[in-house]
Amino acid sequence: MEVLKTHAVHGGTLRYLKHDSAATGTPMTLSVFVPAGEGPFPVLIWLSGLTCTEDNFTTKAGAYRAAAEHGVIIVAPDTSPRGEGVADDPAYDLGQGAGFYIDATEVPWAPHFRMETYVAEDLIALVDAEFPTTGRRGISGHSMGGHGALTLALRHPDLFASVSAFAPICSPTRCAWGEKAFTAYLGDDRATWDAHDAARLIEGGAARGRFDDVLIDQGDADSFLLEQLKPELLQAAADAAGQTVTIRMQPGYDHSYFFMASFIADHVAFHAERLKA
Amino acid sequence: MEVLKTHAVHGGTLRYLKHDSAATGTPMTLSVFVPAGEGPFPVLIWLSGLTCTEDNFTTKAGAYRAAAEHGVIIVAPDTSPRGEGVADDPAYDLGQGAGFYIDATEVPWAPHFRMETYVAEDLIALVDAEFPTTGRRGISGHSMGGHGALTLALRHPDLFASVSAFAPICSPTRCAWGEKAFTAYLGDDRATWDAHDAARLIEGGAARGRFDDVLIDQGDADSFLLEQLKPELLQAAADAAGQTVTIRMQPGYDHSYFFMASFIADHVAFHAERLKA
Repeated sequence: MEVLKTHAVHGGTLRYLKHDSAATGTPMTLSVFVPAGEGPFPVLIWLSGLTCTEDNFTTKAGAYRAAAEHGVIIVAPDTSPRGEGVADDPAYDLGQGAGFYIDATEVPWAPHFRMETYVAEDLIALVDAEFPTTGRRGISGHSMGGHGALTLALRHPDLFASVSAFAPICSPTRCAWGEKAFTAYLGDDRATWDAHDAARLIEGGAARGRFDDVLIDQGDADSFLLEQLKPELLQAAADAAGQTVTIRMQPGYDHSYFFMASFIADHVAFHAERLKA
Repeated sequence: MEVLKTHAVHGGTLRYLKHDSAATGTPMTLSVFVPAGEGPFPVLIWLSGLTCTEDNFTTKAGAYRAAAEHGVIIVAPDTSPRGEGVADDPAYDLGQGAGFYIDATEVPWAPHFRMETYVAEDLIALVDAEFPTTGRRGISGHSMGGHGALTLALRHPDLFASVSAFAPICSPTRCAWGEKAFTAYLGDDRATWDAHDAARLIEGGAARGRFDDVLIDQGDADSFLLEQLKPELLQAAADAAGQTVTIRMQPGYDHSYFFMASFIADHVAFHAERLKA
């Protein structure tokens, strides 16, 4: 683990880090905020959206005041492997910056684009080895990262004790962003897709009884709401499966970090309550 | 006034704006946060540091939670005129992005680099005309913008009822950043410089009795502290002049927006208390 930068913030310590990932076969970058004190602290993993690096959340979300108050470590990884030897696409919604938190099976993506295994194995192992964690962790994210948070929590309920999201892609098998990415990364056989679709996973009973609630904030002025995000599909799946979800439609809010900054303290508190239980 | 972007944040409305400035003879950009409700609200003007536009503070400072709580409008202008017809310099500390909140008298800067008059006249007039203000306002800023906040408040005490700063350049006539900029913008005659040096202004009794306190936060791990910022010169001037200043040395904090985000709520509260009095 290489420490790239260190900043004091809200009484704690924020580090930008680089480490080698076995999952992606590349160096990966991330930020880690550790509150003041000895700990140990529970961990909240934050997954960012399309085009982001670890820097967007770290500089714009304003999450560390609440993290300091509640005594929570926050970990924000990059959204994909990067670099010259890594496949890419000129579009903003495929390739570098658009890993979708799944393990690609198709060329040219398969060798490096393994973001599910990266988060579930390498990232968690690094954080638990290097920082004073309790071993309990939650997961949240925005847009593509909201999809990542929901699906990783539903697929790995032993790893995560709490889950929330901002403006998540709720059903990637039924929107353009998801269909494009899953076709590229997983291939044309849609039978393989449902295991990475939050609404389908909930509908199928994944993690039934493992999460008492799932907190989701969604701006009603979000320009991606109708075509890409579709929280109504998640609500319908939850209703059908008997899973409690709390979807808060926030009037006037858009898809930006100003929206997340407005409600991030609620999410940190939601996770802290469950991670300290 | 052209509205470039609008975002909901913390219950209020954030707008990125463009307007024509008579002072600079150019279009100028800024952001304005207005809390929820009818108002009228007092105004806090924020002046940013070297290399910044209005966007750095707006996205990174996390100021709007406190502004919403206290009912304060926050205005963040760009740090200089910009554009093809505007003089510039390849260095980061001169020209576009480095206006120093003074009116240049020297070529090639004089026609456009008139940031003192821009803030004191055009910016304030725009804000009071377009937004529900009480007409009472404070001023704050960071680094070069901390110098701007202190000197504009001391030179125009009728315009500003409160003043604070983060890591300000306390005496630009006695540091490399200030000497370079003042030589370029004001010329070689140092007799003209002292009127734009916060420590010299306080020493000379400017605004005596007009500010009950001046709040300054400074990180002790700030790499510019010893050579450029020199808060000890401001403290000495204040002691000599009988001006109360509260300089808080914050242990471990650097020159970044993570430092400002950690203490911005204290500054908003400091201004709100004085602006609502």
